[in-house]
Amino acid sequence: MDALLACTKCDLKFDLDSDYPRCHACSEPLEVHYANIDKPQIGKGTSIFERYRDFLPFEKVNRAISMGEGNTPLIQSQIAGKTLGIGSLFYKNESINPTWSFKDRGTATGLAHALSLGFQKIGTVSTGNMATSVAAYGSRSRLETYILVSKGMPAEKLAPIAIYHPHLIVVNGDYGDLYYKSLEIGKTSGIYFINSDVPFRVEGSKAIAFEICEQLNFDMPDYVVVPVSAGGNLRGIVKGFEEFYQAGLVDRIPTMVAGQASGCSPVVNAFKRGENLISRVKEPHTIAHAIENPMPPSGNQMLRKLNKIGGLAVRVTDRQIIAAQHLMAREGLFVQPAAAVPLAVVQKLVAKRQIENDCSIVCVVTGGGLKYTAALDKFSFKPREIDIADIESEFERIACKKGSE
Amino acid sequence: MDALLACTKCDLKFDLDSDYPRCHACSEPLEVHYANIDKPQIGKGTSIFERYRDFLPFEKVNRAISMGEGNTPLIQSQIAGKTLGIGSLFYKNESINPTWSFKDRGTATGLAHALSLGFQKIGTVSTGNMATSVAAYGSRSRLETYILVSKGMPAEKLAPIAIYHPHLIVVNGDYGDLYYKSLEIGKTSGIYFINSDVPFRVEGSKAIAFEICEQLNFDMPDYVVVPVSAGGNLRGIVKGFEEFYQAGLVDRIPTMVAGQASGCSPVVNAFKRGENLISRVKEPHTIAHAIENPMPPSGNQMLRKLNKIGGLAVRVTDRQIIAAQHLMAREGLFVQPAAAVPLAVVQKLVAKRQIENDCSIVCVVTGGGLKYTAALDKFSFKPREIDIADIESEFERIACKKGSE
Repeated sequence: MDALLACTKCDLKFDLDSDYPRCHACSEPLEVHYANIDKPQIGKGTSIFERYRDFLPFEKVNRAISMGEGNTPLIQSQIAGKTLGIGSLFYKNESINPTWSFKDRGTATGLAHALSLGFQKIGTVSTGNMATSVAAYGSRSRLETYILVSKGMPAEKLAPIAIYHPHLIVVNGDYGDLYYKSLEIGKTSGIYFINSDVPFRVEGSKAIAFEICEQLNFDMPDYVVVPVSAGGNLRGIVKGFEEFYQAGLVDRIPTMVAGQASGCSPVVNAFKRGENLISRVKEPHTIAHAIENPMPPSGNQMLRKLNKIGGLAVRVTDRQIIAAQHLMAREGLFVQPAAAVPLAVVQKLVAKRQIENDCSIVCVVTGGGLKYTAALDKFSFKPREIDIADIESEFERIACKKGSE
Repeated sequence: MDALLACTKCDLKFDLDSDYPRCHACSEPLEVHYANIDKPQIGKGTSIFERYRDFLPFEKVNRAISMGEGNTPLIQSQIAGKTLGIGSLFYKNESINPTWSFKDRGTATGLAHALSLGFQKIGTVSTGNMATSVAAYGSRSRLETYILVSKGMPAEKLAPIAIYHPHLIVVNGDYGDLYYKSLEIGKTSGIYFINSDVPFRVEGSKAIAFEICEQLNFDMPDYVVVPVSAGGNLRGIVKGFEEFYQAGLVDRIPTMVAGQASGCSPVVNAFKRGENLISRVKEPHTIAHAIENPMPPSGNQMLRKLNKIGGLAVRVTDRQIIAAQHLMAREGLFVQPAAAVPLAVVQKLVAKRQIENDCSIVCVVTGGGLKYTAALDKFSFKPREIDIADIESEFERIACKKGSE
């Protein structure tokens, strides 16, 4: 399909074969534009490459790349929705992916692009989820894989990245700067950095929107809430809805809600102040480490997009995030703190009466709880400890206690 | 559909509404038998309840039960298969489930049965994966949920169970005895224990076989290798292949291979000695904790079945398991040690020339690596640590090193 890269700000065009993700003129992120999407169809199969082939710029993709990323469940809330009095509350559970986060979608599409250009080295700059994902896919495709992480990442988080045997490099320095450094190194060292907001990662995130549409039988939700860090996932999801709209598959686009943690909310800060450019957050601090990005590289583009489509941006405290994490566990979903941000945002919007009760909402649940069990360190629980000989009396005790309640 | 429960040993029949999982006469496990499967069809949709409705004894299942369990990817090995010289080696990746193990399938079907009988309390006896799964599904369905775990389980493994807020009871005593105790308590306390080999959990595991058949376009693999603990999963997978065979959907049944760890291999021990009954393993010890069951309740039935269908039983050492775990990570799959047992088994069978090189094999990958990161404690890796100012020279250093290799 005819496609090219265009700057999200100045619309300057670049060849699709470019591996540099930003505009040479204004330095804002690029995205893939399709020239003639002539009645695109949803394909068969479960792979995003097969199913959404008409919406992706790949002629042919080596099947070996894929590990079955995407095709994740959309499940209806059983408790939170009723408690909040919301008509329909859904979770798009991205923890059911090969490395247990949404990142696998964009890694697969980014990798497909890297391979189509002949790259034999890939890399990423990450705080966790993306490091794991790129390391896994890189190793599977037998590419040299470079993972740059910030100093201070605990060793227990490093081992589940190191097991895929990438070049794992711990860098002491500003995380935001590291992103731009990686772009330089990519050029000089011939490494395709599949960072969080490169155009071809954004193309992978689109499929989240496509699947939501299909799973709701093209009956659009009113709101879709996404945790926001670098911005690639939000950009991709919006792009997905827009492309299905342009293709005539849906009749409207949901109101997009960007969720951030109070301790690191550069997009929400600028959005609320009506500013066009984000400002770096000094001393970011939140338990939702996966979205603790003080200077998101797609921050300005998120502002432009949210303003253009009438979206919202909401910040929630760590306390609200943890409360939402525990409420989601009550519904059967154990998620990492960042993935609980959307429910915390919904709770806040309901409390402030900023959304209607009869609306339908999809929370994008970005990653699984086992990613960061240290978040449970302050979770106090007291299991009963008994001898096996006392087991009958223990159950009698529980029954009596219940009976007297 | 007409169905009843039958003893796997003496064929004594019981009503389908029985919640007791073992034969009153010979104490061996029961299983669901279907009277008239009249040309069953594979349904539409992705849920196992929709898709395999003709192979399940449920008239109607509340959709709210499901969290999208099953429908997991079957991916082709990219490295191990070639290294071993095997024609086709596949991984059925069960870590892509709502609580990241195969247990969710059987929990969903067990729960459907419990609810159909009007139970408001469920429970399980587990070393880990099943505890998490039953706690999650129980909480989602707002049932009182009782989780019995062995003393000695580290606190870090307890928190990801406790977050679903079950009655979490740590029991000091023999793990094998605890299973039988739970059956007694189930009767007296009105708790439906969805233990590892209850007939309706086995019905859920069947879908692993169904999906493998569909994913391979009904071209049967030669071998299917399954890690074995209590025995419910192996029983279910065999039953699935048998039912598709009876339905005329496939023309043969793969050779089933039961894999166990050398430190706890009651089924392999008895199988190799040609015995009809398993013997309790004293002082079980393996890094594959998820299959560390010294006296599997479906052990005798596994022996009967493996002998009847000409299966194999193979034990592998912890060292072999860890090596397989690391090899699978090279292919992009980070799995818990128990889930690496099948590949270790394949490696052993190839080394001993007990399988043909041009065969096709499916390894059932039962759970994800984040379940048990302590298994990586002895994994020694040295990430490079650098300052951001030195990043260019670091990449030059790597390039020089590569160039001189």
